[in-house]
Amino acid sequence: MIYLDHSATSPPNEEVIQSYVAVSTKYFANPSSLHKLGVEANALFEQATVQIKQLLSMPQGEVIYTSGGTEANNLAIIGYARKNVHLGKHIVTTTIEHASVLEACRALEKEGFTITYLPVDEQGQVVIEQLKEALTDETILVSIMHVNNEMGATQNIRALKEVIQRHSQAVFHVDAVQSFGKIDVPFGIDGADMMSISAHKINGMRGSGALFLRHRYPLEPILYGGGQQQNIRSGTIPLAEAVALAKAMRLAIRTTEREEYRQWKNQMIDHVESLSEIQVVGPHDGAAHIIALAIRGIRGEVAVNFLQQRDIIVSTSSACSSLDGTLSHVAEALKIPKEWATGIIRISLGVTTTGEQIEQLLHALTALNEQVK
Amino acid sequence: MIYLDHSATSPPNEEVIQSYVAVSTKYFANPSSLHKLGVEANALFEQATVQIKQLLSMPQGEVIYTSGGTEANNLAIIGYARKNVHLGKHIVTTTIEHASVLEACRALEKEGFTITYLPVDEQGQVVIEQLKEALTDETILVSIMHVNNEMGATQNIRALKEVIQRHSQAVFHVDAVQSFGKIDVPFGIDGADMMSISAHKINGMRGSGALFLRHRYPLEPILYGGGQQQNIRSGTIPLAEAVALAKAMRLAIRTTEREEYRQWKNQMIDHVESLSEIQVVGPHDGAAHIIALAIRGIRGEVAVNFLQQRDIIVSTSSACSSLDGTLSHVAEALKIPKEWATGIIRISLGVTTTGEQIEQLLHALTALNEQVK
Ligand SMILES: Cc1ncc(COP(=O)(O)O)c(C=O)c1O
Ligand SMILES: Cc1ncc(COP(=O)(O)O)c(C=O)c1O
Repeated sequence: MIYLDHSATSPPNEEVIQSYVAVSTKYFANPSSLHKLGVEANALFEQATVQIKQLLSMPQGEVIYTSGGTEANNLAIIGYARKNVHLGKHIVTTTIEHASVLEACRALEKEGFTITYLPVDEQGQVVIEQLKEALTDETILVSIMHVNNEMGATQNIRALKEVIQRHSQAVFHVDAVQSFGKIDVPFGIDGADMMSISAHKINGMRGSGALFLRHRYPLEPILYGGGQQQNIRSGTIPLAEAVALAKAMRLAIRTTEREEYRQWKNQMIDHVESLSEIQVVGPHDGAAHIIALAIRGIRGEVAVNFLQQRDIIVSTSSACSSLDGTLSHVAEALKIPKEWATGIIRISLGVTTTGEQIEQLLHALTALNEQVK
Repeated sequence: MIYLDHSATSPPNEEVIQSYVAVSTKYFANPSSLHKLGVEANALFEQATVQIKQLLSMPQGEVIYTSGGTEANNLAIIGYARKNVHLGKHIVTTTIEHASVLEACRALEKEGFTITYLPVDEQGQVVIEQLKEALTDETILVSIMHVNNEMGATQNIRALKEVIQRHSQAVFHVDAVQSFGKIDVPFGIDGADMMSISAHKINGMRGSGALFLRHRYPLEPILYGGGQQQNIRSGTIPLAEAVALAKAMRLAIRTTEREEYRQWKNQMIDHVESLSEIQVVGPHDGAAHIIALAIRGIRGEVAVNFLQQRDIIVSTSSACSSLDGTLSHVAEALKIPKEWATGIIRISLGVTTTGEQIEQLLHALTALNEQVK
């Protein structure tokens, strides 16, 4: 089986599983308990947090552990907006964000916030000038993803930050779910103020993620309760998840900018040029680990099926929207012509990907091209 | 080490860990993906859900997987209130609920809801007559815990349901985090309409829980995004957690009403009667697996320390509130006299508890009594 759907989810790393299990078993006590087992568990929790802060070079920052990227994005956006409504009621985001950002913004619209959804250019990039124009005195938050999950379009976080910092009081949230461990994510003074990641996208455990804060921004909780995690995220401390996340992050950073990704992407681009019915959609110079292809005249599901008969696993443009059959909002935002837009598949690479697998994919694409011709 | 803090968290069951790991590894694909690995993963997800529905005898019901008891409680209360505000803006709960219920209610007060916090009698029980009086045409939700986590006080869910059903339109939410797998939890027509559980309290995996719905009650999501779980709880489907939860529930139900619990509790009650400086607080006939003791004149932490020097692990009244040092709201609600209320410890039993451990605890309590005398 050739798994090329790493952006939907990635196989958990053996070492990460092992530390998850070891911690779950040996340090099962509640880190909030006063007894020695609790104290031990809490020390391990603090240690995981320190490790993560070191990895991110943010000793002053905060790590909020969440149930995944969705909760991290919701907490950043809804949590920041609700708590800082006295500063303004305007938020800027883009039309190509993940649903967990877009739907969080829609929920805020119902609460009286105004959201500007910036369009992107044909490379899937925010136009700096448009961002600048969108910022007002009322803008409290800008949320822009780093790497788009459907097309691989990548934003220049440093350039965006500069504009935001210069022209507004807004805090800059970056959804780095698809970029962390794949490309370098600017975080801090010249990058994100808040950053979301998801463990299962970096060979970690499902149901785990984090929101990183450059400073202790005041956030209204999404989950109320016992006051764990500095009263920002209640619920018994997920110790094993935290340790496993720290490990997954360490391993992921090690493989950041795996050189083969770019080489393989270029290989795919070159190959697809020779195929009449298949096109690369999305930017050629976007993130190297995501490549979206459009097949003329057939639906994405048909192409997914064709490839899986050859034991190659890819997805339609995104796993989330795959079940409702509507056209991808990202394909629309990138103005992909209709004849191509219904037949998009996404190939996404990860740590288990090999050159051999890419070769097989190219052969299969040739066969697919013949089939639909 | 004698672990008697099962209500704070419980050691994960070996079998549960194994199935969690097996599923995480073999069925790692995203259940929302259209390819065969996704379809397989989704089938397994459906199967876990069907198993849980069978366990609860609720074929028509819904299972919403969450990150734990806190999220389940928040979703039930905030989610139901926000979505059904057109039906009324009044909610009834009690003064002895877990923080995840109380703080969710407080958040709703800020949104314009009125909350009645019912007092309890000295046995920690809701007075049926007071519940009846609290219900109005505006009451949309009643949230009452089954077993109190600090004192073991247990409510008669069937009797409460009858009153709620007869005198209001309210939906009845029951926090069964401390009762599930310990005593039988009435769910359905003569019990809870919505019920929360937490996996780590029933020897399952941390960071996992569920909200069960008797019907498809409309709920406003707390986490917005890709629309997973019938658009009630977004986030990549936590498949391994779901399978592990189903297994933990099955194993927990098997040990429900473990007869020794009652026997051991009675043994403790009898023994403590002979000790001048130690008292049982909380109802003698409450849940058998939780027993709260007050030690005169010393703080709970001191007693916890004394016992852990004898390798016995118990907690102060609750893990959550253990770090801030305030008096327990439950001790206050039960009107425990101040001279006793500062020195409360909680002993909570679980699947690994043995008669031998209880014997050792009783010896240690005798020694503690001598020490403080
Ligand atoms: C860009 C992006 N953000 C957020 C998420 C949500 O992450 P999770 O599935 O961990 O909730 C995803 C994946 O689904 C994603 O691709
Ligand atoms: C009665 C009760 N409800 C809810 C919770 C919250 O559960 P979790 O820790 O899974 O968020 C707890 C435990 O902390 C509890 O004892």
